[in-house]
Amino acid sequence: MILTVTLNTALDITYRVRSLRPHASHRVTEVTERPGGKGLNVARVLAALGHEVTVTGFTGGATGAVVQGQLTAAPGVVDALVPIAAPTRRTIAVVDELTGDTTQLNEPGPTITPAEWSAFQDAYQDLLAPASAVALCGSLPPGVPVGAYAGLIRAAKAAGVPVLLDTSGEPLRRGVAARPDLLKPNADELAELTGSHDPSRAAQDARRRGARAVVASLGTGGLLAAAPEGRWRAIPPARVRGNPTGAGDSVVAGLLSGLVDQLPWPDRLSRAVALATATVMAPVAGEFDRAAYEELLTRIAVTGEVTAA
Amino acid sequence: MILTVTLNTALDITYRVRSLRPHASHRVTEVTERPGGKGLNVARVLAALGHEVTVTGFTGGATGAVVQGQLTAAPGVVDALVPIAAPTRRTIAVVDELTGDTTQLNEPGPTITPAEWSAFQDAYQDLLAPASAVALCGSLPPGVPVGAYAGLIRAAKAAGVPVLLDTSGEPLRRGVAARPDLLKPNADELAELTGSHDPSRAAQDARRRGARAVVASLGTGGLLAAAPEGRWRAIPPARVRGNPTGAGDSVVAGLLSGLVDQLPWPDRLSRAVALATATVMAPVAGEFDRAAYEELLTRIAVTGEVTAA
Repeated sequence: MILTVTLNTALDITYRVRSLRPHASHRVTEVTERPGGKGLNVARVLAALGHEVTVTGFTGGATGAVVQGQLTAAPGVVDALVPIAAPTRRTIAVVDELTGDTTQLNEPGPTITPAEWSAFQDAYQDLLAPASAVALCGSLPPGVPVGAYAGLIRAAKAAGVPVLLDTSGEPLRRGVAARPDLLKPNADELAELTGSHDPSRAAQDARRRGARAVVASLGTGGLLAAAPEGRWRAIPPARVRGNPTGAGDSVVAGLLSGLVDQLPWPDRLSRAVALATATVMAPVAGEFDRAAYEELLTRIAVTGEVTAA
Repeated sequence: MILTVTLNTALDITYRVRSLRPHASHRVTEVTERPGGKGLNVARVLAALGHEVTVTGFTGGATGAVVQGQLTAAPGVVDALVPIAAPTRRTIAVVDELTGDTTQLNEPGPTITPAEWSAFQDAYQDLLAPASAVALCGSLPPGVPVGAYAGLIRAAKAAGVPVLLDTSGEPLRRGVAARPDLLKPNADELAELTGSHDPSRAAQDARRRGARAVVASLGTGGLLAAAPEGRWRAIPPARVRGNPTGAGDSVVAGLLSGLVDQLPWPDRLSRAVALATATVMAPVAGEFDRAAYEELLTRIAVTGEVTAA
């Protein structure tokens, strides 16, 4: 199975309102709720691709119970979230029906106690044994040490499990130094880590900082990969219109899927770009359009060079 | 005991953000949650005054469970909410720390099935027997017939229990026709019901439409009462600064409290105005400042005339 870690899980709520005006009172016309946090999104896409997936991280309170209920309603996802005393946070996306704009309200994460963090580390260690790959995704809630991902990466490497890191800021900086197998930053995260706005140069710099391979997601510019085996660029066939929410998580799912299927790099990148593009095209944020995905798979342009042996 | 009915209960959530800007992403700096809906607010104030209170209405899902947990944590309030399949709605008040403005997002209520509405009516009938007074408060959720309050008023009158109605729009119009003992509209609700913007004239008109007595809350203008026993005006001693949220619910609590304590009208009105004023002065929305309440009680100016026997 593939293991995804989401330390800062969320209940993602979307409200539709006719027109959002500060200081006014609004009737919400439609409410939707779904499990949130990068690793849970990645797991949902992996399960839809037919992989066995286990999710871990934290869950608490009434909001956590809703997250768990919806999570296990999806076939193929096993819930191994660790219970905590404080409630799982909510995020609220308010969609303005007139302009189409989204206004985001993100609750702070629950504070994790030292005993809860310790219980998580024990659970994670046990989950590594049957894992074929692990993804560490997203921000850290209060109470979790900023160097948390470095420790989780070292544990995965000691267990011989390939580990992907997708985070930002100081947790990313500390994590890279622990030598993850794969880093999946976007352009901003990569620039913040390395100080360079040239993605190709920055990807090489991130490798020097410790990452074995780096796949940078450049939005409509596709993916740029720098690995010991070579360097590639994968580009979607045409610019598509839609909702980019979840496209980055679909890239992570595609990369993990290609990794455990032992695909060569160009095929992993094609899978990731096709999934991300099919996610942008899907009517529901974070879902992917399967027919579009299968059609796109054959049409991703991958260029690059293999490192001389 | 006093019975309060809240058919459209809510989990009231307050978010503090630094500055609310449409289309931006916001970190919520503080989250507070409390049981919401007029009848629950009324019950909390009545319990603080030392009355035994039972609350009924509907509760469902994870949000309903949070409402019930907080409700029964307050001493003196008995939970007799009727379970439903759909989750209790949330309301979100987003407080802008820079301007102090509040932006309100109200979820639609859960849809009540015919079987759930029928179960509620049975529960209500049983709760009327031990009740000394009943208050019917707030809006109706989808699925509850618009004439619901008329039926509940008739049942209370048949059981010999004095009944107060505090709602708006069509449910108010239909409810008045069933001859409630007491109507507590604000100026807007009274004008919408009667077509008259003269509160004194409108209150008399509302009595002609079926209400035995009418107490109109006129904001900083205090209360205006029209009853078979006479007509009064009760005015707070001075304009106070603060948060008017919940002041109307405190008026209802004061009127019910004075009713079951069999106070003469001027004392009921003093109690209601003192409670409402002490609610505006309290630092937390919907709470009341007890010291201010007790001091204010002696300083409310009530003028009026008793109807000739």
